[in-house]
Amino acid sequence: MTDKNANQMWGGRFAEGPDAIMEAINASIGFDQRLAAQDIAGSRAHAAMLAAQGIISNSDAEAIREGLLTILSEIEQGRFTFSTALEDIHMNVEARLKEVIGEPAGRLHTGRSRNDQVATDFRLWVRDQADAAIEGLKALMCALLVQAGTGAEWVMPGFTHLQTAQPVTWGHHMMAYVEMFGRDLSRFTDARARMNESPLGAAALAGTSFPIDRHMTAEALGFARPCANSLDAVSDRDFALEFLAASSICAMHLSRFAEELVIWSSAQFRFVALSDRFSTGSSIMPQKKNPDAAELIRAKIGRIFGANVALMTVMKGLPLAYSKDMQEDKEQVFDAADNLMLALAAMTGMVGDMQANVPVLEAAAGAGFSTATDLADWLVRVLGMPFRDAHHVTGSLVAVAEGKGCDLPELSLADMQAVEPRITEEVFGVLGVHNSVASRVSYGGTAPEQVKQQVAAWQERLS
Amino acid sequence: MTDKNANQMWGGRFAEGPDAIMEAINASIGFDQRLAAQDIAGSRAHAAMLAAQGIISNSDAEAIREGLLTILSEIEQGRFTFSTALEDIHMNVEARLKEVIGEPAGRLHTGRSRNDQVATDFRLWVRDQADAAIEGLKALMCALLVQAGTGAEWVMPGFTHLQTAQPVTWGHHMMAYVEMFGRDLSRFTDARARMNESPLGAAALAGTSFPIDRHMTAEALGFARPCANSLDAVSDRDFALEFLAASSICAMHLSRFAEELVIWSSAQFRFVALSDRFSTGSSIMPQKKNPDAAELIRAKIGRIFGANVALMTVMKGLPLAYSKDMQEDKEQVFDAADNLMLALAAMTGMVGDMQANVPVLEAAAGAGFSTATDLADWLVRVLGMPFRDAHHVTGSLVAVAEGKGCDLPELSLADMQAVEPRITEEVFGVLGVHNSVASRVSYGGTAPEQVKQQVAAWQERLS
Amino acid sequence: MTDKNANQMWGGRFAEGPDAIMEAINASIGFDQRLAAQDIAGSRAHAAMLAAQGIISNSDAEAIREGLLTILSEIEQGRFTFSTALEDIHMNVEARLKEVIGEPAGRLHTGRSRNDQVATDFRLWVRDQADAAIEGLKALMCALLVQAGTGAEWVMPGFTHLQTAQPVTWGHHMMAYVEMFGRDLSRFTDARARMNESPLGAAALAGTSFPIDRHMTAEALGFARPCANSLDAVSDRDFALEFLAASSICAMHLSRFAEELVIWSSAQFRFVALSDRFSTGSSIMPQKKNPDAAELIRAKIGRIFGANVALMTVMKGLPLAYSKDMQEDKEQVFDAADNLMLALAAMTGMVGDMQANVPVLEAAAGAGFSTATDLADWLVRVLGMPFRDAHHVTGSLVAVAEGKGCDLPELSLADMQAVEPRITEEVFGVLGVHNSVASRVSYGGTAPEQVKQQVAAWQERLS
Amino acid sequence: MTDKNANQMWGGRFAEGPDAIMEAINASIGFDQRLAAQDIAGSRAHAAMLAAQGIISNSDAEAIREGLLTILSEIEQGRFTFSTALEDIHMNVEARLKEVIGEPAGRLHTGRSRNDQVATDFRLWVRDQADAAIEGLKALMCALLVQAGTGAEWVMPGFTHLQTAQPVTWGHHMMAYVEMFGRDLSRFTDARARMNESPLGAAALAGTSFPIDRHMTAEALGFARPCANSLDAVSDRDFALEFLAASSICAMHLSRFAEELVIWSSAQFRFVALSDRFSTGSSIMPQKKNPDAAELIRAKIGRIFGANVALMTVMKGLPLAYSKDMQEDKEQVFDAADNLMLALAAMTGMVGDMQANVPVLEAAAGAGFSTATDLADWLVRVLGMPFRDAHHVTGSLVAVAEGKGCDLPELSLADMQAVEPRITEEVFGVLGVHNSVASRVSYGGTAPEQVKQQVAAWQERLS
Repeated sequence: MTDKNANQMWGGRFAEGPDAIMEAINASIGFDQRLAAQDIAGSRAHAAMLAAQGIISNSDAEAIREGLLTILSEIEQGRFTFSTALEDIHMNVEARLKEVIGEPAGRLHTGRSRNDQVATDFRLWVRDQADAAIEGLKALMCALLVQAGTGAEWVMPGFTHLQTAQPVTWGHHMMAYVEMFGRDLSRFTDARARMNESPLGAAALAGTSFPIDRHMTAEALGFARPCANSLDAVSDRDFALEFLAASSICAMHLSRFAEELVIWSSAQFRFVALSDRFSTGSSIMPQKKNPDAAELIRAKIGRIFGANVALMTVMKGLPLAYSKDMQEDKEQVFDAADNLMLALAAMTGMVGDMQANVPVLEAAAGAGFSTATDLADWLVRVLGMPFRDAHHVTGSLVAVAEGKGCDLPELSLADMQAVEPRITEEVFGVLGVHNSVASRVSYGGTAPEQVKQQVAAWQERLS
Repeated sequence: MTDKNANQMWGGRFAEGPDAIMEAINASIGFDQRLAAQDIAGSRAHAAMLAAQGIISNSDAEAIREGLLTILSEIEQGRFTFSTALEDIHMNVEARLKEVIGEPAGRLHTGRSRNDQVATDFRLWVRDQADAAIEGLKALMCALLVQAGTGAEWVMPGFTHLQTAQPVTWGHHMMAYVEMFGRDLSRFTDARARMNESPLGAAALAGTSFPIDRHMTAEALGFARPCANSLDAVSDRDFALEFLAASSICAMHLSRFAEELVIWSSAQFRFVALSDRFSTGSSIMPQKKNPDAAELIRAKIGRIFGANVALMTVMKGLPLAYSKDMQEDKEQVFDAADNLMLALAAMTGMVGDMQANVPVLEAAAGAGFSTATDLADWLVRVLGMPFRDAHHVTGSLVAVAEGKGCDLPELSLADMQAVEPRITEEVFGVLGVHNSVASRVSYGGTAPEQVKQQVAAWQERLS
Repeated sequence: MTDKNANQMWGGRFAEGPDAIMEAINASIGFDQRLAAQDIAGSRAHAAMLAAQGIISNSDAEAIREGLLTILSEIEQGRFTFSTALEDIHMNVEARLKEVIGEPAGRLHTGRSRNDQVATDFRLWVRDQADAAIEGLKALMCALLVQAGTGAEWVMPGFTHLQTAQPVTWGHHMMAYVEMFGRDLSRFTDARARMNESPLGAAALAGTSFPIDRHMTAEALGFARPCANSLDAVSDRDFALEFLAASSICAMHLSRFAEELVIWSSAQFRFVALSDRFSTGSSIMPQKKNPDAAELIRAKIGRIFGANVALMTVMKGLPLAYSKDMQEDKEQVFDAADNLMLALAAMTGMVGDMQANVPVLEAAAGAGFSTATDLADWLVRVLGMPFRDAHHVTGSLVAVAEGKGCDLPELSLADMQAVEPRITEEVFGVLGVHNSVASRVSYGGTAPEQVKQQVAAWQERLS
Repeated sequence: MTDKNANQMWGGRFAEGPDAIMEAINASIGFDQRLAAQDIAGSRAHAAMLAAQGIISNSDAEAIREGLLTILSEIEQGRFTFSTALEDIHMNVEARLKEVIGEPAGRLHTGRSRNDQVATDFRLWVRDQADAAIEGLKALMCALLVQAGTGAEWVMPGFTHLQTAQPVTWGHHMMAYVEMFGRDLSRFTDARARMNESPLGAAALAGTSFPIDRHMTAEALGFARPCANSLDAVSDRDFALEFLAASSICAMHLSRFAEELVIWSSAQFRFVALSDRFSTGSSIMPQKKNPDAAELIRAKIGRIFGANVALMTVMKGLPLAYSKDMQEDKEQVFDAADNLMLALAAMTGMVGDMQANVPVLEAAAGAGFSTATDLADWLVRVLGMPFRDAHHVTGSLVAVAEGKGCDLPELSLADMQAVEPRITEEVFGVLGVHNSVASRVSYGGTAPEQVKQQVAAWQERLS
């Protein structure tokens, strides 16, 4: 009844003894092969620089750079055999280069070390993911803008404590998420800029005595500049932690929207219909549509923030410079990045497909005297009542309506004046959900005109 | 410069559109195939019960049970093709069963559902891992007992704040970890007992109207009893969280010992020599031996506790019964369990191999007037001085020794009596590191005799 | 616009320089005064033992023990002035003892150290909290049993994915939480037993040369035995981590129930009415009742599990024995324990008060063809159909009902037989929500008789 | 033996029943009184705007603004009595305002709500803390720059895996932390800019129908602009999470440096002497100096990152807009901010005081053939050897030196040429730790000239 893989690992391989255990715990090629493209790009830039600086010959550099392209294409085509004995991606590539081009391969490693090499590869990879997150967020925001534009005038309940508080517009609710994801986007942008310094040439930790040009390799790899301290360059992983922190906050936003979609899809709410593509059904209960994608998106914050915790814990209290503990950085970031991109794509798909149930939203928006605050505000604004008095009058009017089994807009002016004689016909202009939302024209408010301005402004920012 | 895998995922597959995204986020077969043996064991028990209760025929049950064995052997031999379209391990096995035995396969799913099936599979898997952790801990404790027995009389510095505080024995230090890992072992034992209830037969969430016998399947699968509430059986994952919590605390203990090994291996400490098998070297710096395995073990708390955070976050606020969020439970537990077992195995190997540097330990133990407290205790115990006075006298004597550039045991009796006339020859019996440790005979103290008793007691408990 | 406290701290006190900073970071009396009762109990036990062993005189012991009682009563009555200059609770009490009884106070610290003293105090405190958690859980379970007993026959929707899956009983749903909290209770029981060993007499880290009797003090303080290794006794905090882990899992269960209560209280669900005592209202929207207590309980998992993360992070990689880092253990456990007890009490109050909306629950339970699986099961069980065929027939019947705008029990026998001629009158015995739940009599199923048995069994276990 | 406070809470208050429990879980005034200054600043800005827009009279606004100043001074002077019955800081201030100025107080709450009020207060508080972190980081960096400038030429071991790898300079090591803390500083700067939008005027969630001017209040409070979506303004706490994430990464950097200081202070390393002000001693072991402050700083990452986990967990899956769960945001941020500032101040003090042990550092830097890589690099650079051959020759020379019991610079040229005849006198120019560090002149390398340039550049950036 035991797990076959575990069996194989513990009953089998580990029975072979310490060497098998050490290989299992020590080798990273099982996961760092994902850095192959970055590793080769870094090596190509390094080789070109070595030649430009006269440290190696142009012909050696050319052989190295060509050989690396050959290897990249082998890897991309799945024709490369990764070797655990060679531990990591750097040594796998270097060993293969020796096979492909012979002796010049040995000159590539001049003036660098595995410490700056892995730091460079990993930064390039994380930088790519920051770009991917930015693209994913833009796509999601565009999908939200479409929903917001279409439903700028639809009314729905604005909740506090999951209790109806005031009517809002569908577009306004969608735009709240555009703001959140917009800040996520700017966090990734900031993180990208901060990490965009090149560790290459920091060597093992102290720099090198070869006359290398770190600015040249930095530029070739799209970095803004080289890292200014070689010890720092090989020792820190704050760029990965910042990426994970930004991803976690973004996943938190996704989890909130996903929760809403799950609740809104329930038979009790029926606020939205999700498309079949992002749901699963039941063969015998035709109306049952399980919001699987929304639930999985809601859950993704777990592994993404778990990765943040994992790497933070690893880095706690590590003395400089490189410690082997830091080899644990990659799998966490790989998994978090993969799942963030997947969650963004799935949310974008769901938002694009989802259908608001406009009549249900409107009915729910008006239930429960949801415009009572509009009435109270009118009393303050027009009659100049102090707030507490206005609340008292409103409470009395709600009680009258409740007694009559009707809603506030259905009371007669006489009903109103019986409670407060100064009330005029004009009050009906703020009752009812459409009047309510139309009145909230303060900057950033839920009024359709405000929402449309927000939509237009974001469309321009994202185009 | 982009990651090939990411490219493939986002530029390629996801370009195919929503269906590819949904498959990527929804299918679990990529990881839950590790539950194959458990899934088949559960199905075999279920089929036998269905026949015993007359719900299906004996011949159908026999066909099902045989067919499942065939599939298990296909999987174990790597001849099984897992299909993502079939989503998960349960449907992969069921579909293959249909191919292997035809129509009777359709009767297996009677009186159960995927919800209780996956809960059963996963409990069996986690239970196996609890057993594996217990075995791994026993092996590590045995290795520590050997070190403790061998070095019961070797003295070394006992640190507080990484400053020498009092001499202790090597055996005593090793036995401290035996106590810690012993509590870890008992935590896994408790967790195993608590999780050892069978969800099978809880069906989707409400139980079933088929006359199933849940006690029979529970017994067949080694469970102590069936879960008493079907909703609870399919809804909770506290057993996995408890396993992760126990694993995290164990990983914390491992991280502390690993930190000590890293520090003790430094050129400045030289307290231990780790074997080449668990270190890596430098081709040109022959004395450099990097404690890679110790560093990686120190780091493992990151991903193990990260998994705990991940699953706790997933489970937060989930309404009953099954939500798709819970599909995120497995990868976290798989990764944490694999890494805990690996860390235990590597630590066991390192402890077995490591060589204490006895002379260095002894010299360090005696440095810094480390037996000053022994002197103060003697003044209290023998001369009846109040504590504060004894501390004052001791401080004066240390100052005298410091002035003479010698250690406390090297002061003459006259030197001593110049400070406190009542001091006698007997005082030298508590000075010096060997006298110091020999004197600490209180229960659980560092005296060799106490350590040997601890070693003997644990040897008996573990045998 | 700056925070006054921060101002005071940074602009004011810290401007005074390094000494103020050191005092602020180093002193613990601001929080460890909560250990006063434990500290005094430990000291009283220690003094009695010292006298029994002839290490101090009986009269000194008596003076110490009386003086400590005096101090305890000063503290309990708020007449004790804690001094930051005296750093911690141990030195505050000891200094006051000197004032109260004079010279004998100096003999109390014989054969112990602050390291074992704080470890003892803290274990006693955490042990008390384990007891408090057990009592709090029992009270909550009793409240749930009342709900379950009262509503053993009420039907409600059983959800998966927050979509109605099958009818269940209210009592069954309540009992699912009784099972969860029952496991929480057993986790606290196990944790309490494991931590119940006395560190007292471990001294600084190595034990002592005084002829102390650690078994006597252990017994006096209600410990099962003394810790067997003095280094371990002062170095580990796994008992606190295990308490936090058990608390976190319990908080997770609470968060799930709280989430359900929030959703169930919404205008869309209306499954329950929470009492005014655990809600807040609106002065002008009379029907608005915000489930504040439920939301706050849902949130408590944050700080409780946050405390778990905090202490785990602190302990990662600390070398033996005592490091000052460990002073950060207490505030985390204090806060987590306080909030767990508060959340348990609030949930108990809410469960006691809450009113199920039985007609709404029953209507929701029957909506959406929720007994379709009962029909399919009947086809399998009575007609011997294979599962897949039964699902096909059921799907057709649901389509017929949907076409007629009625529910399954409202179809005529003729309607049924038009789809599957072998169907008989008997089928109506499983349709309808009451028939459905009554049929699920498998062990642990939702049938009222099963629920009543669970209730009775737990009432006996908890009495 | 129970905790007095707990007793009081559970045995006492909670025995009073549900109302006491609800008050305990619901009221926030116990902690949100720290927002008093921010709350009053926000209200003063709001009142001025209401008058400017003609919503209230100038005389009312003046009375309100004066009254609020009176209250602020009452609070600052400790003369304000906070009431739990009034729940939170907002209602405490408002109630007092009524007492102080009478009727006009009731007009202050026009066009706003507690939801936007608390969001504004909390943003202002967190913004202040971002500023405080920036100031704290600058002070720490300045202290590091002094150390770096002074010790730009001191050599010390550069470690990998806590094993000597290559010599580096003290200044270079210090500057590595300047880089890290510099990135922390820029993270706080980015976070501050992103959070600097005003929620005031978002009202409950939908905006308001009063003709308020949100730009005016935003400007008065130093915000760059008002939040563009009222739902988002009251619903999100990502600004607090980003502050906690930046604080956690900073605390990680502090933990690494603190770990180094603890190790460096050990008797085995003796790399630095910490001042007495940030250490504690032993009354009888004069040489024992415990690095308490360093240990406590190392530990602070626990509670700071624990707070991050806590708030992330609280926010997971919360539907819009305000839920009471969010009341749990403040205590976490308060505690994290207080401890970050304390840790920064303590580290700054320690760095300012600490004395490098230059001879010990230099001796350690040269041990273990630490310039072997310099020799290998020379062979490559000057003789044009391929890397692998150079490593082979170097290994042989190290073996010769080891055999002679000397270090590499002490070998004769003849010794060298016996292994590799092409070696010339010039090789001695790269051997020895001073030559080694002087040679590493690549950009960002450890050469004193590079370090001095870094110091100068940072001094300019920070001035």
